[in-house]
Amino acid sequence: MTSSMTIERLRSLSGIKPTGQPHWGNYFGMIRPALELAVDHQAMYFIADYHALTSVKDPKALRQDSLGIAATMLACGLDPAQTLLWRQSDVPQVLELTWVLSCATSLGLLERAHSVKDARSKDKDLNHGVYTYPVLMAADILLYDTDVVPVGRDQRQHLEMARDMATFVNVAWLGHAAGGTVDDNARWDNKSLKLPRALVRAEVAVVPGLDGQKMSKSYGNSIAVFAPAKELKQRVMAIVTDSAPLELPKNPDTCNVFALYKLFATADQLGQLRANYAGGNYGYGHAKLALLALAEAHFAPLRERYQQLIAKPDDLEDILRDGAQRARAIAAPVVDRIRSAVGLPAHPQWPA
Amino acid sequence: MTSSMTIERLRSLSGIKPTGQPHWGNYFGMIRPALELAVDHQAMYFIADYHALTSVKDPKALRQDSLGIAATMLACGLDPAQTLLWRQSDVPQVLELTWVLSCATSLGLLERAHSVKDARSKDKDLNHGVYTYPVLMAADILLYDTDVVPVGRDQRQHLEMARDMATFVNVAWLGHAAGGTVDDNARWDNKSLKLPRALVRAEVAVVPGLDGQKMSKSYGNSIAVFAPAKELKQRVMAIVTDSAPLELPKNPDTCNVFALYKLFATADQLGQLRANYAGGNYGYGHAKLALLALAEAHFAPLRERYQQLIAKPDDLEDILRDGAQRARAIAAPVVDRIRSAVGLPAHPQWPA
Repeated sequence: MTSSMTIERLRSLSGIKPTGQPHWGNYFGMIRPALELAVDHQAMYFIADYHALTSVKDPKALRQDSLGIAATMLACGLDPAQTLLWRQSDVPQVLELTWVLSCATSLGLLERAHSVKDARSKDKDLNHGVYTYPVLMAADILLYDTDVVPVGRDQRQHLEMARDMATFVNVAWLGHAAGGTVDDNARWDNKSLKLPRALVRAEVAVVPGLDGQKMSKSYGNSIAVFAPAKELKQRVMAIVTDSAPLELPKNPDTCNVFALYKLFATADQLGQLRANYAGGNYGYGHAKLALLALAEAHFAPLRERYQQLIAKPDDLEDILRDGAQRARAIAAPVVDRIRSAVGLPAHPQWPA
Repeated sequence: MTSSMTIERLRSLSGIKPTGQPHWGNYFGMIRPALELAVDHQAMYFIADYHALTSVKDPKALRQDSLGIAATMLACGLDPAQTLLWRQSDVPQVLELTWVLSCATSLGLLERAHSVKDARSKDKDLNHGVYTYPVLMAADILLYDTDVVPVGRDQRQHLEMARDMATFVNVAWLGHAAGGTVDDNARWDNKSLKLPRALVRAEVAVVPGLDGQKMSKSYGNSIAVFAPAKELKQRVMAIVTDSAPLELPKNPDTCNVFALYKLFATADQLGQLRANYAGGNYGYGHAKLALLALAEAHFAPLRERYQQLIAKPDDLEDILRDGAQRARAIAAPVVDRIRSAVGLPAHPQWPA
């Protein structure tokens, strides 16, 4: 309204589960879009080590992968001075909010979670951590008065559930009328849980794996972001193509190599490759080498930075500790007001 | 083995849910047996305010009832110098252990919980807090390396579930063979979760309510421990009896008044009342006045102490704070070793 109006940057939050080396699918689908958010948001990233415990039962792997994620994010461009990066379990109060949310959330909501339905349909033995997952995820978001959460289309439900749970708490303890929680961060009352918004990425990069299915560690079709040059070449050369002979024209739009090339190429480069496919006498081996050249050019500097970072775990720990401290400073007043709202005493010091 | 052997007292733990004024059923069924344990155990009592959130959505009531429980236990004889008394939520780390247990506990176990089956059979809308209840209860016990937990017969299952969950964690993360966790506190390895034992009270006092059903707040048939003299009289005179005429002999063994008298009476007093019933010309009104006299004699000094204590909430807070500090000192090394065992970093300070 006036020229002196300050525009506050919205707070965005993303969690990354530390379960092994990131692959291209993680990089183009999550890491890079997440880091792009930091340009015009107060971006916050946590390493979801509590979440990982639902599946990871190897403490050494969890520690290594947590540091690996930190090194990955930093290597890919996260600036720890601007952007918060911390380990989820360095703010254990997230589990207090999880408990409060649990006490206001009916099982019916949790039964509708895609993750639970999926596990049930596969007749998997579901542990209670998996079942509680959406509640912890909601607490992750709500603990920091988050404004927006970047999600892919298939993760929308978790955000909707977080909004539902926030509303349950606001109704049960904060005197909001059912359905009457203010869904407008600018008019938010600074006392209740803030309702986060989904930032659905309109176009999520489609990253096929070597076999053309979605790239996924569990399919064994992935290429690691920080694969050494030799491994990178092996993986790229192993991309599955059809068996069209060299001399014939080829269809770029059904080709995995082309789909992956698209992730790295400029418009000009892409047009050139398309022409090569159409012209014939251009084999998949040529296309793979072209892809390899771009991928290596893109990832080599990141790989080098990653190696430098991961070689200094103490420095990574310092960065995570600093991030956690800043995250706790944001969480503390939220924890205080929720404890007060539900009738618990002021939060104690820890340790004694 | 040697004469200088020290005999360590076993650590016992009980939780008390702060949901309103205690009644005679709570007193004879739980409070008094629990306090008797303190004679030869290192007894620990917590006020289960996290648990209460599953049903209590009134913050003021939760605060008052939490202090009310503290005053009750102290009035009934708890010595805070000997015995730990604290509010559950003053050791929020119990929720961290809850999370770790959740990640090793299958839903199948939780579905078998009596509390869940009961709620389902009544078609109640189950909130996730109720569902998680046995996990939080297990964490309550395991967080303090508890040796024994006094339970009524109908609460045995919770203790069994706590033992199961401890074993799951010990197997999943601490390298115990399945079924091989040492079930002997003396040989316990000081690294894993200690398996608690149930201390099943052989004879739990049966406390009928005014109408002869089990005394329960929800049946509206209870008598408050700290009822003022006038209310106490009203309640006792309202006990339901049969309509046998004054002059006839009466059967003490089917009479609620007699059953309640038994709770307070010496053997001699009880024999006398039995004789009065058998002799005829002794009405239920007489029996009620005899019961009232014993109850008033028993509870009047407790009521007075309670009134003095509850009038000084700051003193109660001091006692609870001190208890919490001592409880955290016991919990801290357990939290540390579990975080380390599952691969989480050292526990951070709180606040930043």
